[in-house]
Amino acid sequence: MDKLELLYEGKGKKLYSTNKQDEVIAEFKDDLTAFNAQKKGSESGKGSLNCQISSLLFKLLAKNNIKSHFIEMLDERNMLCKKVKIIPLEVVVRNIATGSLTKRLGIQDGKMLDFPLVEFYYKNDDLDDPIINDEHCKIMGILDNDKDIEFLKNTAREINKILLAFFDERNLKLVDFKIEFGKNENNKILLADEISPDSCRLWDKDTNRKMDKDIFRQNLGSVVKSYKEILNRING
Amino acid sequence: MDKLELLYEGKGKKLYSTNKQDEVIAEFKDDLTAFNAQKKGSESGKGSLNCQISSLLFKLLAKNNIKSHFIEMLDERNMLCKKVKIIPLEVVVRNIATGSLTKRLGIQDGKMLDFPLVEFYYKNDDLDDPIINDEHCKIMGILDNDKDIEFLKNTAREINKILLAFFDERNLKLVDFKIEFGKNENNKILLADEISPDSCRLWDKDTNRKMDKDIFRQNLGSVVKSYKEILNRING
Repeated sequence: MDKLELLYEGKGKKLYSTNKQDEVIAEFKDDLTAFNAQKKGSESGKGSLNCQISSLLFKLLAKNNIKSHFIEMLDERNMLCKKVKIIPLEVVVRNIATGSLTKRLGIQDGKMLDFPLVEFYYKNDDLDDPIINDEHCKIMGILDNDKDIEFLKNTAREINKILLAFFDERNLKLVDFKIEFGKNENNKILLADEISPDSCRLWDKDTNRKMDKDIFRQNLGSVVKSYKEILNRING
Repeated sequence: MDKLELLYEGKGKKLYSTNKQDEVIAEFKDDLTAFNAQKKGSESGKGSLNCQISSLLFKLLAKNNIKSHFIEMLDERNMLCKKVKIIPLEVVVRNIATGSLTKRLGIQDGKMLDFPLVEFYYKNDDLDDPIINDEHCKIMGILDNDKDIEFLKNTAREINKILLAFFDERNLKLVDFKIEFGKNENNKILLADEISPDSCRLWDKDTNRKMDKDIFRQNLGSVVKSYKEILNRING
């Protein structure tokens, strides 16, 4: 399967058309961005690690009946995907309070939450991805009915359950994660984008050592070294 | 009924204990604050107008089976109320997009919303009253069950219906408003605080002239002159 036209370049991936109308190739970039791209960097090999981790997790989810855009890995950096129109929503699930949640709401950093918290953020760089509620989704036409809103939330909770158990067995704490969904040509909602240490917070279970993009956000060292360790743990 | 001890002084009111354990007196202040009290002012007579307008609206709502803390007006500036513990939540209902909504989400100013939008803000000056969703309410212990959350939302929608029709007959557009609720000693939830041009946006129906606290926020003239006009219209 060859890359034809560059359709879109995001912060972490390039999307190319293929000779099939309904399939695209996602090329994972080495670029790192944080704080709405106010902080930028790059580390050689990061994209390839995220592509491999994401592929593995999409396969795990598929086995658990979570349908995603993932078709197959073409090579270490390129993923063949079903073409979807991304719903401009960042769906965040949090098990432990950290990051923006603690700053915004004054919840203590590291606090285990009573239940997995689901949040919606409107994906819009100019507005700095503002947090929204279910009614905003409908008023802004992001999702036009309660059924889709509930589907997204329930799928996010289900994914959390599957990933929590999976990472736990590999001595990793899934602190929180961000997922995105898209609609295919039949208007069916599929999990899309990626699930990687760029989009999940993962802490070592014994030491609470940060092993995700917070390493880049907080200048804690090499992300590639840590992402490799994650890939090794989940491959093993 | 005499004022005994000053229990609490907020931005717009002072609360005094009375010789009855479960009743307090709210004294409406002339102070005006905006943008989380970064802008401060005062206009003689403002408190008295808000006390009269609030009393009138609480009575209107009582007739429509909305239970509030309001007992009676003692004089033009003092309201006798049932004592409640305020739930730290600003419940906002919006019919037309303006103010923070347009800035935060990029919705066009003046846009009529498809349905009345209900928003929750966590009442916390230090955090600048952040917007939250239903799950944050439960995780933060603001409300501990879905029934109370739905009760607040449904009551807010019901109040909106009543006030929309009431103001419309008086040639006023109810653009949006903020209400607060409290729990009495039996843990029953009552509408509390005030409903006034300090907490509602009201536009003249013919001209869209702002007649509420935006006059103060945007330096558009005398709030007292405008609040008097509102009182006259709803008294008439």
